Amino acid sequence: MTYRQTTEFFLYDWLNVESLNQRTRFADHSRETFDSVLDTCEKIARDKFAPFNRIADTEEPWFDGEKVHLPESSHAAARAFQESGMLAAAQDYEIGGMQLPCVVEMAANSFFSKAGIGIGGGGMLTSGNANLLMAHGTELQKQVFARNEFAGRFYGTMCLSEPQAGSSLSDVVTRATPDGSDFESDPFGPRYRLRGNKMWISNGEHELSENIIHLVLAKIPDAEGKLVPGTKGISLFIVPKKLVDAQGQLTGERNDVALAGLNHKLGYRGIPNTLLNFGEGKYPVRGSAGAIGYLVGKAGDGLRCMFHMMNEARIAVGLGAATLGYAGYEASLEYARNRPQGRPMGVGGKDAKQPQVPIIQHADVKRMLLAQKSYCEGAVALELYCARLVDELHTGDEAGAKEAHLLLEMLTPIAKSWPSEWCLEANSLAIQVLGGYGYTRDFPVEQYWRDNRLNMIHEGTHGIQALDLLGRKVVMDGGKGLALLASKMNGTIERAMAVPELAAHGNALAGALKAVGNATKSAWATGNPEEALANATPYLQAFGHTVLAWIWLDVALCARRQPESDLTQGKLAAARYFFHYELPKVPAWLKVVETRDDTCRSMDDAWF
Amino acid sequence: MTYRQTTEFFLYDWLNVESLNQRTRFADHSRETFDSVLDTCEKIARDKFAPFNRIADTEEPWFDGEKVHLPESSHAAARAFQESGMLAAAQDYEIGGMQLPCVVEMAANSFFSKAGIGIGGGGMLTSGNANLLMAHGTELQKQVFARNEFAGRFYGTMCLSEPQAGSSLSDVVTRATPDGSDFESDPFGPRYRLRGNKMWISNGEHELSENIIHLVLAKIPDAEGKLVPGTKGISLFIVPKKLVDAQGQLTGERNDVALAGLNHKLGYRGIPNTLLNFGEGKYPVRGSAGAIGYLVGKAGDGLRCMFHMMNEARIAVGLGAATLGYAGYEASLEYARNRPQGRPMGVGGKDAKQPQVPIIQHADVKRMLLAQKSYCEGAVALELYCARLVDELHTGDEAGAKEAHLLLEMLTPIAKSWPSEWCLEANSLAIQVLGGYGYTRDFPVEQYWRDNRLNMIHEGTHGIQALDLLGRKVVMDGGKGLALLASKMNGTIERAMAVPELAAHGNALAGALKAVGNATKSAWATGNPEEALANATPYLQAFGHTVLAWIWLDVALCARRQPESDLTQGKLAAARYFFHYELPKVPAWLKVVETRDDTCRSMDDAWF
Repeated sequence: MTYRQTTEFFLYDWLNVESLNQRTRFADHSRETFDSVLDTCEKIARDKFAPFNRIADTEEPWFDGEKVHLPESSHAAARAFQESGMLAAAQDYEIGGMQLPCVVEMAANSFFSKAGIGIGGGGMLTSGNANLLMAHGTELQKQVFARNEFAGRFYGTMCLSEPQAGSSLSDVVTRATPDGSDFESDPFGPRYRLRGNKMWISNGEHELSENIIHLVLAKIPDAEGKLVPGTKGISLFIVPKKLVDAQGQLTGERNDVALAGLNHKLGYRGIPNTLLNFGEGKYPVRGSAGAIGYLVGKAGDGLRCMFHMMNEARIAVGLGAATLGYAGYEASLEYARNRPQGRPMGVGGKDAKQPQVPIIQHADVKRMLLAQKSYCEGAVALELYCARLVDELHTGDEAGAKEAHLLLEMLTPIAKSWPSEWCLEANSLAIQVLGGYGYTRDFPVEQYWRDNRLNMIHEGTHGIQALDLLGRKVVMDGGKGLALLASKMNGTIERAMAVPELAAHGNALAGALKAVGNATKSAWATGNPEEALANATPYLQAFGHTVLAWIWLDVALCARRQPESDLTQGKLAAARYFFHYELPKVPAWLKVVETRDDTCRSMDDAWF
Repeated sequence: MTYRQTTEFFLYDWLNVESLNQRTRFADHSRETFDSVLDTCEKIARDKFAPFNRIADTEEPWFDGEKVHLPESSHAAARAFQESGMLAAAQDYEIGGMQLPCVVEMAANSFFSKAGIGIGGGGMLTSGNANLLMAHGTELQKQVFARNEFAGRFYGTMCLSEPQAGSSLSDVVTRATPDGSDFESDPFGPRYRLRGNKMWISNGEHELSENIIHLVLAKIPDAEGKLVPGTKGISLFIVPKKLVDAQGQLTGERNDVALAGLNHKLGYRGIPNTLLNFGEGKYPVRGSAGAIGYLVGKAGDGLRCMFHMMNEARIAVGLGAATLGYAGYEASLEYARNRPQGRPMGVGGKDAKQPQVPIIQHADVKRMLLAQKSYCEGAVALELYCARLVDELHTGDEAGAKEAHLLLEMLTPIAKSWPSEWCLEANSLAIQVLGGYGYTRDFPVEQYWRDNRLNMIHEGTHGIQALDLLGRKVVMDGGKGLALLASKMNGTIERAMAVPELAAHGNALAGALKAVGNATKSAWATGNPEEALANATPYLQAFGHTVLAWIWLDVALCARRQPESDLTQGKLAAARYFFHYELPKVPAWLKVVETRDDTCRSMDDAWF
C-alpha cells in the first residue's frame, strides 16, 4: 500500500470526511477537490522536498554575521510550498483561503513532513502564528500580519522559551515596557519595547521571506518595575523583524531583534533553530534600543492566547512524527523486498544449496515491518481523527463542538507524545531491517531516526504531556473527559463484539480501559499530587497504548466492512499486531501507577 | 557514585575477584595490582580519550587515495593505549603479558569505551585477532603475528561479511586457491591466493600501526573449481597488508589488499569502517594478482576457529554498549544536578514566587536517571559476571570450567543484545533529561545515542542473537543450559527469600523464570522451528529482562550484606526500580511466544 492509499482510506472510508461537505463552510468541496489538494501536495513533496532531504541535513544553516544561509533547494521548496496556497488552506475564501477542513489540510501537509520535515520553512509555524492572530488580533493586526503570513510574504515564529526558563514559562523574564507616552495610540495596538533573550526559536532568522513576524511572550513590569511571578503576568506581542506600515509595506526600519546564535542539532537540521536577542541595542530603532512590539489581546492574557493554538500545533507535531516513522517504514520495506540474504528455516534446517531469499520472507523482518506499519499507520489515524475533531469544534453543532473540545483535551497529550515515542521506535526498526547499511548515511533511515528524536522534546516534553494528562485532563470536571473518551471506546468495543474476528480485541481493549480507569483512581486516591504524579509518564504510555488499540479496533471494524483486499487485510493484520504484541504492555506500565510506587521520587540525590 | 566505585563494588564485593589470586596463574596479583591497572586505564581514558571523543566524531576518517587519515588525537590515544600494555593484558608473562584475569581486563578496558568508543584503534579487535591465533595458529603464526599484535606493532581485523552475504556466512564467495606448487612449504603454513570483497571491516585501513593483519574467511574451491555451499566449506586465513618474514620484519612487499571505500556512519565514526578488495590486482605481489594468505587451522574449519573468539567479542560489545549508556547517565546526572528549572508540585500547586529548583528534584527526572542507572549498572554487572565466567572457563577446575562454558553459552546472546537495546534506551533518556540542549551537539549525549545504535547490528544482530538463544541454546543437550541457569537463579531467589526487604523481588523473579520456562516449552511444542522461532526476538527480550532481574537481585543481596552507604542504597534502589518498572514487561513479551502467534510470519508481502 502507498501512503496515499492509506491516507485516503482513513479520510474517506474511516472518517467519512466527505460528509463534511454538507456543512455550509465546506459546501463547495467534494472528494474531487480534496483529492486535487492531495495530488498537488504529493507532487510538490515528491519533486521539491524528498530529493533534497539529505542536503537539508548535510548543508546546515549558517550565519555570516548578517544573514542565515540555507541551501538553494530549501528556498525552492519553500517557494513551491507558498505557491501551493497551503499556508492559507483552512482560511476563508475572502482572504485567499480554500476553506479546507482541518483534517484534509493536515493530511495534505503530511506529504511534506514525510518527504522532508526540515525543509521549506516550517509552514505550520507560520500558519499557526497567523491563526493565532486571526483569533486574538485586532482587525489591522490580522490585515497586515496574518494575511501576509497566509500569503507567504512574511513567515512567523513563536518565541516562548528563554535560556533560564526552558519549559517553565512562569520564569520568563523578557520585559515589555511602554514605548513612549503615545504608546497607546499606535494603529497596531499598544506599543512596547521588549528586552530579553529567547531560546530554541525555530526559523528565527532566514532569508526565505520578506519579513519575519515574531510572536513573543514577555512580562509588563508593575508600577515598581517588578515582574509578576508566575504565568499570570505574561503578555503576548507581535515583534516584526522589519517594521511595517499600516498597508503592510516595509518602512525600511530594522527592529532591534538580533540573532545571537544558531543551535547545531542532531536532526531537523533544515530548520534554523535560533537564540534571539530582543532589544539589546544591536539594531537601535527610532532612536533607541529595545525591540518594538505590539500587544496582542489583553495584557496578562498572553499564555491563554498562545495556548489557543497549542492543540493544533501538538497534533501537527504528532503527525510529523508519524510521517517520519512512515518514511522509514517505506524505505525499509523497499529494502526488505529487494535484499536477498539467508534462507527460510524449515524442519530440516536450512538448505545452503538453495538461492538466498529476499529478507522480507524472514519472520523477524516481517515482525519489524509489521511493527512499523502498526505504529505509523496507527499514529496517522490518531492524528487525522484529532484533526477531524478540530473540524467538529469549528463547524459542528453546539453539542458536537462541545464533545469535540472535551475529546481533544483528552487526546492531545497522546496525539503529541505517542507518535514521538513509537514512531521513533519504528525508525530504529527501519535501521535494523537494513542492518549495517541502515547505519550508514547512504540510506535515509538514520536521518529519519535523528530527525524524529526531536519530537519527544519540543512543543511540551513527554514528561509535560504526562503531567497534563494525569494532573489535569483526566481529573478535570470530575473526570468528564475520561468518561466521554471511555464511552467512545465502549461504542467501538460493542461494535467489535458483534464481529467474531474482532471480539477478542474488543475484550482486550475493555480490559485495558478498565485498568486505566482503576489506575487513575488509585493514583489520586490520596489526593496528593506528588504521589499521584510520580509515575505520570508510565501512565501516559499505558493510556497511549490503550488509545491506539481503540483507534486500531475502530479502523479494523471499518476494514472489516469493506470487500476484502490487500489494503483491508493489511489493516486487519496491523490491528492484530497491535493487540497481540503491544496492548499486553499496558499492565506493566500501570503497576507503578496503581501502587503510587515511590521508588523514583524517594530516590536520594546522593544514591545516584 | 563514580563509575570507578561501582566497578570496584562489582569486582571486589560482588564477584569476589580477589579470590582468583589463589590460582597459580594469578598468584602474583592482588587487589593492589588490579587497582593499579584500573588507575592506569582510568587516567589514560580521562586524559587521552574523553577530551577527543567529539573530534573523533566530527573529523571522520578520510582516504586520500593511498592512506586513511585520522585526527592526531586518535593517533595519540592509540599510542597511549599500546603503551599501557592492555593489548596483552591477559597473556602469559613470558610473551610480555600481565596474566590478568579476563574480568579485570574487561573492567579496565571499559574506561576506554566509556571515554571514547570510536577512538584508539579498537584494541579489542586486535587482541581478539591475536587470541584467535594463540588458540589455532602454528608456533610461527603466533610468534610473528599474534605477538606483534599484542605489542601493538601490528593491528588486527576480522573479515567475515561480504556485500552479497551480510550475516549469511554460508554465502561467502571469497576464493582461496593454492599459491603455486610449493604452496604447502611456506614457513607460515599453506599459502593461498585470495580473491573477493569484504564488507564492514573495522580498522581495515589506517596508519595507526606498522602493519594490519587481516583474518579472512574464504572458501577453497573443490577439484572442479566450485565453492562448497554452506558454512562447512569456509576456511580461515591470515592476510597481512604488508608481507613479513619469519622474524616479523616487513619484507617491503605490499600484499594485494586494497581499500575500496570507507563507510560513512551514523556513529562510531572514529573507527574507519571499510570495504576491502582482496586480490583484484591493484597491488600485484610476487608477480601476480591475488592476496597472499596463510591457512589457520584446518581447511574447512574456519568458522569454528572464528567463533572460538565470539563469546568474548560479544561480551566486549555488550560492555561497550553498557559504558556508552553509563557515559550518558553521567552526563545527564551532572546536568540534572546543575540545571535549575521549575518548582516542586505540592498539594497547593506550585509557588511561582519561590526560586526554581535543580531538575533532579522532579520525580520524572529522577525516574529517567534511575532507569539509566538500573539499565547501565545492571548491564555492566552482567558483562563482568560473564567475564568472570571466562576466567572460570580458562582457570577453573574441570567441573567449574564445564559449568562456566554452559552458562556462557546461555548468557552470551543476552550479554550481546540486552545492553545494546536498553543502554541505547538509557542514552535516549539522557537526551530527554537535557531537553533541547540534549538535542544539540554542544552536549555529548546525542553522540552516545548515535554511537550506541551500532551495537544491535554488529557482531550478530538482535535477530540473530534471538535465533541463537531460542533456536539453539535453550534446547541444546535437552535443555541442560537452561536448567543450569535456572538453578543459579533459584539459588539467588532462595537467598533473597531470607531477606524480608528482598523477598518480594525473589518471588517476582521466580514467577518470571517459570514463565520463561513455560514459554520455551510452548514455543517448541509442535517441534516446528518456523513456528517456534517466529517470535524469537520477543523471547530474547523477556529472557534478557529475567536475566537482568536475577543479576540485580544478586547485586542487591550483596549490597544488603554491607554496611548501609550511599552506594548500597543506590544499588538497592536501582534493583527495586528494575523489579517494579521493568520485570513486569516480561509477560507482555512472552504472550506471543507461548501462543506461537503467527501474525507476523503469516503476513503477506502484498498487505504491507
